[in-house]
Amino acid sequence: MDKFEEKEIASKRIFDGRLLGLRVDTVIMPNGVQSTREIVEHPGAVAIVAITDDDELILVRQFRKPTGEVLLEVPAGVPHKGEKGEEAARRELEEETGYHAKKVVKAFSAYTTPGYSDELIHYFIATDMNLMKTNPDEDEFVEVDIIDLETCLDLVKEGKVKDNKTIVGIMIADQYLRGETGD
Amino acid sequence: MDKFEEKEIASKRIFDGRLLGLRVDTVIMPNGVQSTREIVEHPGAVAIVAITDDDELILVRQFRKPTGEVLLEVPAGVPHKGEKGEEAARRELEEETGYHAKKVVKAFSAYTTPGYSDELIHYFIATDMNLMKTNPDEDEFVEVDIIDLETCLDLVKEGKVKDNKTIVGIMIADQYLRGETGD
Repeated sequence: MDKFEEKEIASKRIFDGRLLGLRVDTVIMPNGVQSTREIVEHPGAVAIVAITDDDELILVRQFRKPTGEVLLEVPAGVPHKGEKGEEAARRELEEETGYHAKKVVKAFSAYTTPGYSDELIHYFIATDMNLMKTNPDEDEFVEVDIIDLETCLDLVKEGKVKDNKTIVGIMIADQYLRGETGD
Repeated sequence: MDKFEEKEIASKRIFDGRLLGLRVDTVIMPNGVQSTREIVEHPGAVAIVAITDDDELILVRQFRKPTGEVLLEVPAGVPHKGEKGEEAARRELEEETGYHAKKVVKAFSAYTTPGYSDELIHYFIATDMNLMKTNPDEDEFVEVDIIDLETCLDLVKEGKVKDNKTIVGIMIADQYLRGETGD
């Protein structure tokens, strides 16, 4: 596949923010034509597929400024400096939902938007959970919503889960629970 | 959920590119604290879940500069100006893979990264296909890969599909084909 690679001949920094960076790379495409690539830099994230003993998913509803909408999502966030993925997954789950998971295992990682960003999201499956506190942190403006897997799958089909990582999370839960029940 | 909304008090333009825009909004959070939101603006995209009569998916492998990797993806792209989603889906499929779909139906739309971008991706299911030309366009540096659904599902489970929209696309194909076969 080397024949498809692009050769970088210049890179211009545009922005260094609190969360994101932005640069414009100039590249030579395989046909010799010059082009530019606008690239968003992101530190990476964790998403937590939190499954209760009753095959329900622990989800959150939150307002997302870029979309102007309240969305139903799997808990997720950016790891703190020096924090490992699994630790970040446990912390985000607890901060956003009040649940502590005894068991957290990595599912896989995937890029959110590889056409223009380097953000890699790491999916973790959390099980064996205890509710530690009924009110999540004051600075987390989220509402917890616990929904059984079959309903989640229907919500995806109906277009009511409007966040890619959450759709992926529901698929992970489906594959995990089907594997568990052995079919 | 109004209690979770953020009030915008300022917005600063950072970048207007060929594909992306970037702005920083200053907001008042529900607890009265001021914060900033770095927001990537994207025109939106279409992704095509192209299913053959033999329950295979028509996928493409392509080099993605932001990730430095060749990724396995569903065909996708940004609609041309004035182009409807379904038209864009047909065009992108044909340009990238050489296949023309007689039947194209909308599945649903979802945000790729609602935490920091407004990109909405529209998923279309394409069926009843004919191969129009064996070599895709010269300016599309992609390699077509046709993979049966069961293998696609295994590739997801093994973490070998490293693109969120493609994982969502495989889930759409799975739900579609299970609906078709009536189980």
